[in-house]
Amino acid sequence: MKGRFAERTRWLTASDVRELLKYAQNPRIISFGGGLPSPDSFPLEDLRVIFEELLREKDVGAFQYGPTQGDLRLREALATRMRARGIRAEAGRVLVTHGAQQALELLGRIFLEEGDIVVVSQPTYLGIFTALATYRPGYHGIPMDEEGILTDVLEEDLRALAMDELRPKFIYVVPTFHNPAGVTMSLRRRRALVDLAATYEVPVIEDDPYHELRFEGDPMPPVAGLDKEGWVIHLGSFSKILAPGFRIGWTFGPPEVVNKMSLAKQGADLFTNAFGQRVAERYVSLGMLERNLPRVRTMYREKRDVMLAAMEEHFPEDSRWTRPQGGMFLWVTTRPGLDTKGLLPTAAERGVVYVAGHGFFAGKPEVNHMRLNYSFPNIPDIRRGIATLGDVLAEKKRVKAPAATPART
Amino acid sequence: MKGRFAERTRWLTASDVRELLKYAQNPRIISFGGGLPSPDSFPLEDLRVIFEELLREKDVGAFQYGPTQGDLRLREALATRMRARGIRAEAGRVLVTHGAQQALELLGRIFLEEGDIVVVSQPTYLGIFTALATYRPGYHGIPMDEEGILTDVLEEDLRALAMDELRPKFIYVVPTFHNPAGVTMSLRRRRALVDLAATYEVPVIEDDPYHELRFEGDPMPPVAGLDKEGWVIHLGSFSKILAPGFRIGWTFGPPEVVNKMSLAKQGADLFTNAFGQRVAERYVSLGMLERNLPRVRTMYREKRDVMLAAMEEHFPEDSRWTRPQGGMFLWVTTRPGLDTKGLLPTAAERGVVYVAGHGFFAGKPEVNHMRLNYSFPNIPDIRRGIATLGDVLAEKKRVKAPAATPART
Repeated sequence: MKGRFAERTRWLTASDVRELLKYAQNPRIISFGGGLPSPDSFPLEDLRVIFEELLREKDVGAFQYGPTQGDLRLREALATRMRARGIRAEAGRVLVTHGAQQALELLGRIFLEEGDIVVVSQPTYLGIFTALATYRPGYHGIPMDEEGILTDVLEEDLRALAMDELRPKFIYVVPTFHNPAGVTMSLRRRRALVDLAATYEVPVIEDDPYHELRFEGDPMPPVAGLDKEGWVIHLGSFSKILAPGFRIGWTFGPPEVVNKMSLAKQGADLFTNAFGQRVAERYVSLGMLERNLPRVRTMYREKRDVMLAAMEEHFPEDSRWTRPQGGMFLWVTTRPGLDTKGLLPTAAERGVVYVAGHGFFAGKPEVNHMRLNYSFPNIPDIRRGIATLGDVLAEKKRVKAPAATPART
Repeated sequence: MKGRFAERTRWLTASDVRELLKYAQNPRIISFGGGLPSPDSFPLEDLRVIFEELLREKDVGAFQYGPTQGDLRLREALATRMRARGIRAEAGRVLVTHGAQQALELLGRIFLEEGDIVVVSQPTYLGIFTALATYRPGYHGIPMDEEGILTDVLEEDLRALAMDELRPKFIYVVPTFHNPAGVTMSLRRRRALVDLAATYEVPVIEDDPYHELRFEGDPMPPVAGLDKEGWVIHLGSFSKILAPGFRIGWTFGPPEVVNKMSLAKQGADLFTNAFGQRVAERYVSLGMLERNLPRVRTMYREKRDVMLAAMEEHFPEDSRWTRPQGGMFLWVTTRPGLDTKGLLPTAAERGVVYVAGHGFFAGKPEVNHMRLNYSFPNIPDIRRGIATLGDVLAEKKRVKAPAATPART
């Protein structure tokens, strides 16, 4: 069938993280690579209660075909939760998807023509690149600091683009416990972002799967909660607060966006698995989610603390890292010029893996970063793995790669 | 956000069948419209056993992120079952998807450029149109009779296209218990189809979700089992033999097709819900599927028989219909010129709905068909609904629509 495939298949590539899953499945390797929640966070006893209820009630809707937009009861439960965070949500404007990843793909499908501009932070969640790959947008990167993306740079760039009569199709952000950077966008930057969206009429996609995993500091309002004019498309997920295996994510957004995404989803897979939707709905409405979150937060805080302490002890002086107040990741910056991708085989040989920072950049990557996940490995492995990684970093002489380029592309 | 959407959104439309789901959820209306399995076919007691096992074993793989290609144990179980039907399958060439619908969308994505030719039967499963909508192929229709698509016409057309240096990207067929037509392709036509695929080097997509639901006649080898050169891409599904709510389908095909589909799936939704995959795997490997099928077949045969008998009694003389040996649908041809779509509001008012045949045709539809589903409604409803529908058909005078056009487009 050579030569018979569509041209767009040339742009399909595997993400670095997905490729790392094979290491995660080798029990002898300590993986800081995946974005996996801890298996200990899965509420198996609650699931037993939910399964039993669904079977006892012969809840046919859990097993049958269902509407493309999603189970109404789940959408109502989600809208209620979003309203409690200040988002003016309603069930009619919620679409349930197979993870937030599917929402990203559907957003690409309804918005993007080849060459359209998509604004991302540098670094950004790398699943956005695979989700949008076949739509071939051009990425415009905005650097970040400890307060999230630099909205003054964003403003400058939106203005410059507008002078050239260019307007990005959307701005993609992970404001809370950023993947991979581990930082949280400050309130003033959130306000600035919403203002820029309205001024330049550019939708913002707020990818928000981690906010419930806050173990330190005060909750921050979601960007969608500050939005008065309907420019924000808000994505949520049960993957980090229930279990990824049910594949339940959702989108809240303007009616025309949700309607077009629903039509696209109908062709893509008809509807999101009904069983997972029912489980998620019960998990919320029976109060199980609220009961479990404190336990998961405590678990992740402890793991983060262990990782930070081990890094203090074992990492070389010339490394820096973020100190997340929640979520699952932290972001390491090694000495300039050290290529973390080149280091990976050595680290894997010594029994520890991470994700090199390269894949999180649009355009030319900075080479001296790595993303470390602390939610998945257990505490002894975090101690051991960080010690090993510290050794690997310390031994490694400056490699031949050039010094890091500035973040913007 | 008006004017900001991609041009491809113009081609997104809702399928007639999805729209009918709202009737199916109104308990006062008898629906022959959906493609829903009977809720009585869901093996709730087996599911109880499986859920209990997964929880007792703390089977983390059922809840965690998993590989894009699918759970290896499930792929092995599927390969074993396919080999038993004469398909030379292996787990490495199986991809698990969110229903076979997702496989159709992924196939469109990897194969189709705008204007590429896709060959379909007339009528054909209408989900193919929504799955491929944004890729904008041109459809070439081939008429059917009681033995499936007319392979002599197909040969003639492939030859004519080849003379114009045109070659379809693929031929899409539902050979066994065709949706919507209810007929099964004969062995000689299957052989002819495989030969044509090899001769003209055009892949065949064999969509095969119903074959286990045979309640009459001898099993037919799958088209993929007759394929010596690897031109057939075979799609299967658990939606009709376990439950649609888990959303588990699969593709077996040439390595380069499965690899490209996997890459596309990674961007689309990362992986198929792990819980549903584990449930499907246990359902097969614990022998539950084989134990349940006889019960489901008996149930559906009885429903078909009741529907056929009621049609004999109540439908007007000038109607004809197919007599399926399995599956979930039969296909009615009313007198020429009667427009079944125009009749639908009257029927719904009287308490019964069906799917008008129009949506199953590429190009200009024949207007005097309807698809009737017998797997979902219960037996008293089948009797009552068919009687009502017979009345509606008999009362209805010839409507203004022109006589049906020939099936080919």
